[in-house]
Amino acid sequence: MKVIKDSVHDHIQVDGVARDLIDTPELQRLRRIRQLGTVSLVYPSANHTRFEHSLGVYHLACEALEQLGVDGRRAKRVQAAALLHDVGHGPFSHNLEALTHRRTGRYHDDVHELLVEGDVGNVLREHDLAPGPIADLIAGDGRFGQLVSGELDVDRMDYLVRDAHHTGVPYGTIDHGRLVRELTFVDGELVLAEGNVQSAESLLVARALMNPTVYSHSVARISKAMLRRAAETLLESTDTGAETLQRMDDADLLVALRSTDETAAFSRRLDHRNLFKRAVWAEIDDVPGGVIEADHDTIRRFEREIAAEANVDPDAVILDVPSRPTMTESSSRVVVNGEIRGLEQQSPLVEALRAAQYSQWRLGVYSPPTVLERVGRAAVDVLELDIEGALVTEVRNGLDTTLDQFTE
Amino acid sequence: MKVIKDSVHDHIQVDGVARDLIDTPELQRLRRIRQLGTVSLVYPSANHTRFEHSLGVYHLACEALEQLGVDGRRAKRVQAAALLHDVGHGPFSHNLEALTHRRTGRYHDDVHELLVEGDVGNVLREHDLAPGPIADLIAGDGRFGQLVSGELDVDRMDYLVRDAHHTGVPYGTIDHGRLVRELTFVDGELVLAEGNVQSAESLLVARALMNPTVYSHSVARISKAMLRRAAETLLESTDTGAETLQRMDDADLLVALRSTDETAAFSRRLDHRNLFKRAVWAEIDDVPGGVIEADHDTIRRFEREIAAEANVDPDAVILDVPSRPTMTESSSRVVVNGEIRGLEQQSPLVEALRAAQYSQWRLGVYSPPTVLERVGRAAVDVLELDIEGALVTEVRNGLDTTLDQFTE
Amino acid sequence: MKVIKDSVHDHIQVDGVARDLIDTPELQRLRRIRQLGTVSLVYPSANHTRFEHSLGVYHLACEALEQLGVDGRRAKRVQAAALLHDVGHGPFSHNLEALTHRRTGRYHDDVHELLVEGDVGNVLREHDLAPGPIADLIAGDGRFGQLVSGELDVDRMDYLVRDAHHTGVPYGTIDHGRLVRELTFVDGELVLAEGNVQSAESLLVARALMNPTVYSHSVARISKAMLRRAAETLLESTDTGAETLQRMDDADLLVALRSTDETAAFSRRLDHRNLFKRAVWAEIDDVPGGVIEADHDTIRRFEREIAAEANVDPDAVILDVPSRPTMTESSSRVVVNGEIRGLEQQSPLVEALRAAQYSQWRLGVYSPPTVLERVGRAAVDVLELDIEGALVTEVRNGLDTTLDQFTE
Amino acid sequence: MKVIKDSVHDHIQVDGVARDLIDTPELQRLRRIRQLGTVSLVYPSANHTRFEHSLGVYHLACEALEQLGVDGRRAKRVQAAALLHDVGHGPFSHNLEALTHRRTGRYHDDVHELLVEGDVGNVLREHDLAPGPIADLIAGDGRFGQLVSGELDVDRMDYLVRDAHHTGVPYGTIDHGRLVRELTFVDGELVLAEGNVQSAESLLVARALMNPTVYSHSVARISKAMLRRAAETLLESTDTGAETLQRMDDADLLVALRSTDETAAFSRRLDHRNLFKRAVWAEIDDVPGGVIEADHDTIRRFEREIAAEANVDPDAVILDVPSRPTMTESSSRVVVNGEIRGLEQQSPLVEALRAAQYSQWRLGVYSPPTVLERVGRAAVDVLELDIEGALVTEVRNGLDTTLDQFTE
Repeated sequence: MKVIKDSVHDHIQVDGVARDLIDTPELQRLRRIRQLGTVSLVYPSANHTRFEHSLGVYHLACEALEQLGVDGRRAKRVQAAALLHDVGHGPFSHNLEALTHRRTGRYHDDVHELLVEGDVGNVLREHDLAPGPIADLIAGDGRFGQLVSGELDVDRMDYLVRDAHHTGVPYGTIDHGRLVRELTFVDGELVLAEGNVQSAESLLVARALMNPTVYSHSVARISKAMLRRAAETLLESTDTGAETLQRMDDADLLVALRSTDETAAFSRRLDHRNLFKRAVWAEIDDVPGGVIEADHDTIRRFEREIAAEANVDPDAVILDVPSRPTMTESSSRVVVNGEIRGLEQQSPLVEALRAAQYSQWRLGVYSPPTVLERVGRAAVDVLELDIEGALVTEVRNGLDTTLDQFTE
Repeated sequence: MKVIKDSVHDHIQVDGVARDLIDTPELQRLRRIRQLGTVSLVYPSANHTRFEHSLGVYHLACEALEQLGVDGRRAKRVQAAALLHDVGHGPFSHNLEALTHRRTGRYHDDVHELLVEGDVGNVLREHDLAPGPIADLIAGDGRFGQLVSGELDVDRMDYLVRDAHHTGVPYGTIDHGRLVRELTFVDGELVLAEGNVQSAESLLVARALMNPTVYSHSVARISKAMLRRAAETLLESTDTGAETLQRMDDADLLVALRSTDETAAFSRRLDHRNLFKRAVWAEIDDVPGGVIEADHDTIRRFEREIAAEANVDPDAVILDVPSRPTMTESSSRVVVNGEIRGLEQQSPLVEALRAAQYSQWRLGVYSPPTVLERVGRAAVDVLELDIEGALVTEVRNGLDTTLDQFTE
Repeated sequence: MKVIKDSVHDHIQVDGVARDLIDTPELQRLRRIRQLGTVSLVYPSANHTRFEHSLGVYHLACEALEQLGVDGRRAKRVQAAALLHDVGHGPFSHNLEALTHRRTGRYHDDVHELLVEGDVGNVLREHDLAPGPIADLIAGDGRFGQLVSGELDVDRMDYLVRDAHHTGVPYGTIDHGRLVRELTFVDGELVLAEGNVQSAESLLVARALMNPTVYSHSVARISKAMLRRAAETLLESTDTGAETLQRMDDADLLVALRSTDETAAFSRRLDHRNLFKRAVWAEIDDVPGGVIEADHDTIRRFEREIAAEANVDPDAVILDVPSRPTMTESSSRVVVNGEIRGLEQQSPLVEALRAAQYSQWRLGVYSPPTVLERVGRAAVDVLELDIEGALVTEVRNGLDTTLDQFTE
Repeated sequence: MKVIKDSVHDHIQVDGVARDLIDTPELQRLRRIRQLGTVSLVYPSANHTRFEHSLGVYHLACEALEQLGVDGRRAKRVQAAALLHDVGHGPFSHNLEALTHRRTGRYHDDVHELLVEGDVGNVLREHDLAPGPIADLIAGDGRFGQLVSGELDVDRMDYLVRDAHHTGVPYGTIDHGRLVRELTFVDGELVLAEGNVQSAESLLVARALMNPTVYSHSVARISKAMLRRAAETLLESTDTGAETLQRMDDADLLVALRSTDETAAFSRRLDHRNLFKRAVWAEIDDVPGGVIEADHDTIRRFEREIAAEANVDPDAVILDVPSRPTMTESSSRVVVNGEIRGLEQQSPLVEALRAAQYSQWRLGVYSPPTVLERVGRAAVDVLELDIEGALVTEVRNGLDTTLDQFTE
């Protein structure tokens, strides 16, 4: 048995198939992929990696399985899935996922091929574990899929606490010890035992507070958009393909961007944290539906139109349109007064948190500080935005101030 | 200058009037009053006191004043108010407040007299500080009253973090450092600067999650109700008056209850944690309005009727009816896109949290485990409750199980 | 199974005999005995109790037993011993131990009688556990005695971390998770596995740093000496016996001291933290051997002589002489390069820590601030101390300053 | 003013020259240099960077300056020095320092040139700060040099706490808040005020415990040695010079090693954590003086001789000889009983810690697991080591086991 020291869970015991999986190049690669991508440009301590997160998810999965009384082959499958659930991530984690998905058709949790190939495939075969069911668990399917990838999954429990520890933002400090202990199966469904309405709420709330403060902090979004543009240019101007990009680690990509003429300018800006600023930061009600629903090609066309109207280089305009907030119902179930209730039915918070996504949604147009005002006004025009609501204060007032960390 | 080591804020610097106030018997008495009263019977580590909390509130007030650029006499007043804001607490903090209020007409934050009398009065006079404005601040009045006692006050910022540290429940871990830094006065009103919607939400959410998990945990409510009954008996059967009770510390009260015949039984139960259990635990929709609105005398009468119908000793029945959840609007203000908005207007969470108070509200009837079922059924009858909703599962099923900590 | 939330170990599972023991009045009493006695007058957050510490020791014992592969009756005995190891403590923990020992002949870990009597006795009998072997374990005897009471025991592992958490002084933050994991039996002896020289050192170092900073902080020593004097007076001037005193909790003693005429003055000083100050603070080389070795009666006589010479009330002088530092060899064993070595043999730190006890040793003479200088000079004379080394700076310079928390 | 969130110090305020320096490419580059180099291969969470550490050192320097009452130009110089003190680090921090020093003659704290050139030079000139005195401070010279680079410096205070936070090893948790507060100048010398013997000891002890557990953990040493060998090969087999290497970040070096034929094998081993093992692990008394004192060329020759005798490829043997432990006296000064004493004179721990360096010193010979025994025996022969003491257990017993994290 191997014991690994972790800054969040203290000691993590690794054994059996998990021990062998950890030693594969595929898992070791995750040591060089930052968990939060460009968020480290906002929170300088946020340099933790997908590797330590994967260990943490494995650790919590083991605790949940013990609590649920599951062992044997079924437990091994869940443990392997927990450890491998992020093996499909490309450099900078989610940052480039939309880009690679457009070209490969795969998201990071589509790992069927990865579990057959290479050393991971070998280890699974040595342990008589079929890759299919494990890939299904990672995709959230099967009886234990909810444990690996669902609303009460151990993935979320780990990343909230870990991201809080490394950013210093305390909103993610949930009671994962209690959550894992209180998971139980009722009629084949994973639910939280009696008395855990607040435990379940806390998980949703933690995510809702971490989201705008950390994951979607405006500076994180700006730098992510710049990285995405640079990576897209890399694919377009070199013979690097999306599959190759997807298998890089952070170092590979950083150096590739530096050493390619077409991406060197963006790379230098990212390396020196000489970032674009927000020319536009528009709430959802101020943005026409056609812009919100626009596909990638249309967005690139909008960018060129804005650049033309503002008379700036096309590379000086980035349009960043998040997806429309989803309204899928919460799947969390919790026992209240002896009966299983949907968390949504029990807690007014759940719907409110969903509604909050609307008030937090922002369309961004980013450009170099020197042309901020021109680009802002051009974007309002091209995108047909409500001018007062959309322009950020600095632009509206003709100022060009730096946005510091706390300003969103 | 004195430096005091604190488990939450690390080092607290104490100077001037604060240093002299700390040395008064009135403030030193708070060392012997537990911050959370009987909550330590649920969370054994929750033995922190009003004294360290008062130091913490003083510390955060100093930081906020520095941030707001306030100094001189005005700052000294706020500092004194922060330090003295809990000096009016009786033994076991809030636990007996309703009882003493009925007899003295004063809540713990009504401290006008206390600031004139004794050593506190002397110290304030020596420092040329009039007691009136300080008492007003403690009552939440005046320009800085919101800082000492309001929705964004430093009192709440301290207790959430401190209670989390000492109970081990992480929901209270707000970002007080950021909150204090982002406070600002706009048009005479204390608001949070741009980009702090989540900071403000986090404070409300933390309280909403700590409330049922810690402050109103069912076992904390049961033991509080038992303590309250014992103290009421003490006042009725001895010559101890409410004013005297109010000036006791925890040790005084514990020993008084032990050494009075009429209260010895309750005292022994509390000392040995041999607590009553829930016979009834009814949601708000299952309780007639007349019961919810009942005054103290009516509640005592209900208790006697339930005892009579169940054929048990009157001391074997406690009826615990929390106030109806209030619907007062949130007073928090935050700057969004350059304009001051009510937090409520900006965040759907605020209203949801208020609604959640309804779903968390519970009427309790408590009695010794041996008579739980009889008392439960009698209470349903006397109070005209909906029987299925009201009886706790164990009683409904004819079981008599111990409620462990995690069951609410 | 019961799960208890702890601020240090998060969740503690309690089962079987432990669960029944926790519900006894004897163990519940520990909720009302502060772990560090008067240390809370120096570190205001240090209000944790022997109860939560006992739970923590039980928790670590369970982890160690699992690691060592011990179960069945033997494990139950160790678990019971861990939980009960402090049941013999009187009010304010160690503070009055010397006083009660002189009159009862028992230290707190001499619990043979306590394990036969009362509810604890009943529970042990119900679980078929003989009290003798458990009492032996608590006294440090038997194969597992080292685990309960030795240099690498779980008692120390818990209190160091717990005291650090509650005082805010970080020196106690050892890696208890690793220590517990690395314990192993070799030839019937409890040792630390290969690669743990630093783990073992860290435990000794943590204690060596916590000792002067927390446990023997000068203000803690002063207040402890005042409490001890008050309690001695209580025994001498009332019909309270040492056995009764020993069974009190903190509240009982506080109230007894308040309500006894002869102890009221000391009690008021302690309640108001209006403490004596150091008139003398002498290093070991400046104190004659006869003073260091003096028995209790001689010390009381010295006190009277100093008071007479200084012309002050006898109650205005307290002489506090710690025992001479012991030179017993460390019993810790650790595996190095495949062989068991004494930690002392391997680590130069161990001897140095022992030597450090000499440099930290201080004789104290305490008195009210107003007579500090007179008492100091009288003490130097009566005790034949080296005058320059012994008088504290304030006395030497004719000043009378308050000693703040950081001054030792 | 800019506020940066830090996982260790919470909020760090940055202003004036510091704010401008942070925006330079030279400082931003530190975001991509791991604080502990290859230690992250032992402690997976240890991915923190020189950038956040530099911010932390700056933060503590500001606190110390405020405490010491220093402001104006002198304070600005110290602040700049604190922020810039690590700007001279190459990739993987200290890991390659010996290598680059042999070829450039400069250690990382020799920054005179760096403070004149580039954007850092521009910023300093804009703020009218001469580079010379700042470089001197970084080298430890001048009245405030001890604050930036000495035994009680803020550099050490930050890295101990930060490394503990990110590795999860608690030994580094010193009381930096107290240390910074208690610094004072007496007769032009930086000392710790009265009552801080333990504060000073704790700093030395923390370092002494972190050293073998973290910084010189055997696996960290092995991976560092492999990285060093690979980097040396890179310099020898490509036109990359030592100056260029020194200016790389971690990503540059990782990719350079991957894409160079001669270093690809080592690079793959490091990327996959497929590390060499210890063939020899010898205590200082078992190693001839000539080996301990050998220069780099001699060591490379020893390696070739061992490889020849073991009949393995020269790249399969790495000889790792740490410097002989230094015996320089501690420079820490602390006030005891009103007089300044050397910490060494006051505390027996200091000498013991130095002695402990001897017992912790180890010569290592590393090679691939498959040839471990052959290389071990050849090394014993070539280096004339004491065979029983030097061979690691596995080799001595003819075993080839994996060394897990906890085995040193």
